[in-house]
This record gives sequence, C-alpha cells and structure tokens, in this order.
Amino acid sequence: MAPQRSRQYAPGIARRAAIMESAFTAFGTIGYWNTTLAQIAQDCGVTRAGLLHHFPTKESLLEAVLARRDEVNRDLIFGGSQDPRRNPRDFLGKLIRLVEHNASQPGIVSLFAVLGAEATHPDHPAHAYFAGRYESVRSWIGEALRLLDQEGGLRPGSDPTAAAIELTALLDGLQVQWLYRPDAIDMPALFRQRINAQLVVPLDPAELHVTPVAGSATSAE
Amino acid sequence: MAPQRSRQYAPGIARRAAIMESAFTAFGTIGYWNTTLAQIAQDCGVTRAGLLHHFPTKESLLEAVLARRDEVNRDLIFGGSQDPRRNPRDFLGKLIRLVEHNASQPGIVSLFAVLGAEATHPDHPAHAYFAGRYESVRSWIGEALRLLDQEGGLRPGSDPTAAAIELTALLDGLQVQWLYRPDAIDMPALFRQRINAQLVVPLDPAELHVTPVAGSATSAE
Repeated sequence: MAPQRSRQYAPGIARRAAIMESAFTAFGTIGYWNTTLAQIAQDCGVTRAGLLHHFPTKESLLEAVLARRDEVNRDLIFGGSQDPRRNPRDFLGKLIRLVEHNASQPGIVSLFAVLGAEATHPDHPAHAYFAGRYESVRSWIGEALRLLDQEGGLRPGSDPTAAAIELTALLDGLQVQWLYRPDAIDMPALFRQRINAQLVVPLDPAELHVTPVAGSATSAE
Repeated sequence: MAPQRSRQYAPGIARRAAIMESAFTAFGTIGYWNTTLAQIAQDCGVTRAGLLHHFPTKESLLEAVLARRDEVNRDLIFGGSQDPRRNPRDFLGKLIRLVEHNASQPGIVSLFAVLGAEATHPDHPAHAYFAGRYESVRSWIGEALRLLDQEGGLRPGSDPTAAAIELTALLDGLQVQWLYRPDAIDMPALFRQRINAQLVVPLDPAELHVTPVAGSATSAE
C-alpha cells in the first residue's frame, strides 16, 4: 500500500517544491513586496487555486522559503554528532564551510541580501525573523569566541562581543560585494583570514575540510 | 531682476525637492521595483503631470536621488581644501565621520541597503551605479591604506587590498544590523576600532573631530 500512497502524494509534493523554487527566485531578485502570487503561479505553471491550496498567503510562502533555508544551514552547522558550540574551533570552521557553500549559490545569497535589507522595516512580514536571526548569529559567534578566549585561544586584545558583530557584518557585506564581482571577491578566503587573525593558532585546512585557495585571495582593484 | 527670477522658480524647485524626498523614502523602504510614480505623486501632493515634468521616468528619479546622496557624501569626504587621499589618516578619519553622520539618518542607510541589495541583479537600473560605487570605495580605501603602508603606518601583516574589501563589507554589514538594533550596534565605534586595529598609531579624537563614545561600544547580546 505504501508505494501507492507515495505515488498519490508525489504530484502535490512536486508542485509544492516547484512553487517554493519560483518564490525563492522571485523574492531573491525583485524582493518580497514586488512579488505577486499570480506571477509565481504563472512561473511554475500551476493555477492560482493550486498555489493557494499549498500557500494561502504570500506571508506563508515567505515563511516556508525561509524555514527551508534555515534547515539547510542548520544541517551544515549543527548536522554533526556533537553541538559544535562545545568545540569553538570546529564551529568557526563550519561557519567558513557555510560561506564556501554559499559561494556556489548566488540565488540564496541574493535572497538573504534583498530580504534582510527590506525587512529592517518593522512592517515587513520577515522583520521578526531577520531581527531574531541576527541576534542568534551574533550570539553563536560570540559564545564560540568567549569559550576560545577562556581557553587562551584568542589573541590578546580581542573583544568577543565586538568581534561577533564584526564577523556577522563581514558575512553580509562580503556577500553583497561578491554578488557584484564574483570574480574579484573571494568570500570564504577573506572570512577565513579575518577569523584566523583573531586566533592564536590559525585553523588549518584539515579543520576546515576545504581546499586551500590557490594564489591571491583578493583582486578587487 | 535676480530676486524676482528666484521667486518665479522657487515653486518648481520646492516641488522638485518634495518629489525627491518622497522618492527617497519610498525607495528606502519598499525598494525601487515596488515604488510607483503615481504613489510618489500622491505622497508629495503633486499631479502625475507635475511629477513627469520634473522626472519623465522612474529611472531618472532614482538617478537624481542617488546623485544627490553622492553630492552630500563627497562634500563630507572631499569637502576640505585638500584631496584627503594625500593624507590617508585624514581620509580614514573622514570615513569614520561619514559613518557618524549616517548613524543619525536611518532613511539614507535603509535606501542604500535596500537598493544596493536589489541592484546586484544586472537588470536593475541602479546596477552600474552600485557596481561602480563599490569599485570606487574599495579603491579609495585601498589607496589610503597602501599609502599608509609605504609610510610605515600600517601594522605588520596588514594587506591593504584585503583590508579595503573588509572595511567596505563592514560598512554595509554594520548598517543592516544597526537598522535592526540601533540601540545595540554602535556603527561608528566599531568601524573606528577596526580601522585603528590596523594602524601603528591609532587615530586620536582630535583627528576624528568626533566625541569619543562613552562606555562600551557594543552590547548586542
């Protein structure tokens, strides 16, 4: 019986995924305010009624898209057997890996850049989501750096709270520049350099599970 | 004759300024794509024909708003008697003053955050403007840091090109966090700290012409 049920549900699941894919692209290019459900329905070839069956409002569609991204990101950061915050060097290495992962996905980066900027307005439906996300990111990075500091792993004069705000800002700012000049801005390398500049012992490639970047990291001018 | 001519033109000038003010607010909150000329005309109480007389297209209005911002920023950075790039410490001090200035103007900060993120898309009418703006900002900061490096003013290990990208990213990223939490993110103080961390001799308050911030610069968590 089970396979038959799967087949029965499969079109609905595929349709839902197609709607989310179209919404993801629309929100990430023209933004939330300018996206209409009618346009999304047309883009992915479903009827308006079919779309409303899965997502009764534009807000609910936005929530689904953001929740899906969070799932993917959490898997990358927290997917291991142990909470990486217990091992701050591992956590920082995973953050760099997340940036590496994003560097292959301009659509996701654009989505977060456009929505994150739009949603500073308190009336935006994703305002609370982004406000909370920034608090979380700062607090995770801050926690990791404070733990490292207690272990003597941070260079003298480092301020974990200020560094957490700075690293969060660097993530955002590098993404925007990278969207304009993917050829010139090496996000993961620059982010890794800034993290390593604060550590007594820099993260080594084995901790990062990434291939070191060949040549110069930066060639913006 | 001259005063009479001024009086004759004054209503047109005032109307043009009012249109730009409304456009500025609309672009900075709901973004370029979602703003309509009809809405702007209504917001500032002019007729659609009156608006089109000054700005025949939405693109021309966007260009005027961005050009006006550039004028203000250039005055702040390059308004002195000497090109500040000849004196890199003066240039960096003026950059910090610009951030101080922005910290009193959430509307401007929001405008640049929303448009800068939207305009990464090559079809956006401000794409070339923002792409060029990032090149200029990186190149000005990079030039100042290279000059300082030649004079022995940068700390050992500093990479002017990478630092120029980072400082540009920090400006953008701090602005977005500040829009969410103006109470918790002290943009000018954090930006000053990051610049000073690269200098052999930190900028002193007299060079900055700003009041030092009392207490801790950061209290995000």
